[in-house]
Amino acid sequence: MRISELAERSGVPLPTVKYYLREGLLIPGVATSATSAIYDEGHVRRLALVRALAAQGLPLEKIKTVVDLVDNPRDDLFVELGHAIAALPPYVDDSAGPDFPRARRLLERLGQLYDPRFAAVAQLEHALAALEAAGLRMGERRIDTYGRHVRAIAEVDLELLPTRSREATVEAAVLGTALYEPVLTAMRRLAHQHLAARRFGSDEPPTTSGDPATHDHRE
Amino acid sequence: MRISELAERSGVPLPTVKYYLREGLLIPGVATSATSAIYDEGHVRRLALVRALAAQGLPLEKIKTVVDLVDNPRDDLFVELGHAIAALPPYVDDSAGPDFPRARRLLERLGQLYDPRFAAVAQLEHALAALEAAGLRMGERRIDTYGRHVRAIAEVDLELLPTRSREATVEAAVLGTALYEPVLTAMRRLAHQHLAARRFGSDEPPTTSGDPATHDHRE
Repeated sequence: MRISELAERSGVPLPTVKYYLREGLLIPGVATSATSAIYDEGHVRRLALVRALAAQGLPLEKIKTVVDLVDNPRDDLFVELGHAIAALPPYVDDSAGPDFPRARRLLERLGQLYDPRFAAVAQLEHALAALEAAGLRMGERRIDTYGRHVRAIAEVDLELLPTRSREATVEAAVLGTALYEPVLTAMRRLAHQHLAARRFGSDEPPTTSGDPATHDHRE
Repeated sequence: MRISELAERSGVPLPTVKYYLREGLLIPGVATSATSAIYDEGHVRRLALVRALAAQGLPLEKIKTVVDLVDNPRDDLFVELGHAIAALPPYVDDSAGPDFPRARRLLERLGQLYDPRFAAVAQLEHALAALEAAGLRMGERRIDTYGRHVRAIAEVDLELLPTRSREATVEAAVLGTALYEPVLTAMRRLAHQHLAARRFGSDEPPTTSGDPATHDHRE
């Protein structure tokens, strides 16, 4: 297909497609003349990946890291996945390393790998320190519950990862990490509301109320 | 205590404390003269709340919403909680309403409340639409697994909510929603790495490798 069709198929504005080409996020099409080239389904997929990462707030340089990893497989898929996931936000200051005591305690309690070189270890440490600063704590009951259920979720995530090619696995792992997180956090908030409606709500369930003024839960 | 001591106890710079007072995020202390006042533990707690919300990226106006709700209880704690949680990011465009078909389908499958006025319904719809745009989908297997385990997490969250006062409940619900989310997402990434190390890794576990070049999972 021509570049205009690629733009249309992908729902990405033509100038943006050209920009991605210039920046090396999209490999060039096969040249058919000095001014035109043809593109294929690989380009459509790559545009979807780039757009999804950009929508998650990744700066161009981080998107490039992911794209390079997808295109240039390393020896070890595990290491490759680690690098790709590390390119995702949140970008936390990891200068507190090489040791992350709160994260270490939590992971050791759960019997999980503790490797301070994992980017998510610094993220976890940062999140636990923020809790403490606000006067909250991560007690053992909560650690155990979160640990058990998060592990079950992660197991299904891995099971559902495509394995038809290394490229597909890395792509799906990066996108899945970034894109299922907001699903999970929204689902948690809704589960809270579902449970709270029964525990704290008035007798009348809010969905059957005819008075929007008292049940407008949004800003 | 005097304002300088309040600042020191809270770890908040004095000019910031004065700014919060001017903006009405902190109620004034008891005046002891025309230029000085004394502050108490309530002020220390309030500063911790304001700082924690600011650190989560809440703009001043949203922090004010939360603080007002904590200080001015409504008739219905459930409605109050809904308003307070709705002040938290992410702030998604909910103009797609009044119906959110992807979120509705998911919640109906899980047998949970679907009320399009809940802010998290728009968040969930937005997250599911982003998945689709990237070529991923939320299949039934994943919906059921996420739903079951997120519900179990939410149940413990509610159980551990303090009930000594309405103010404490609202405060903890808002902080807990905001501050346990990054803990959960970091834990999910670490569970992935723990499981992936066994599935995709080389025989040698990465923590025992002496070569940092091949096992540097951070950027």
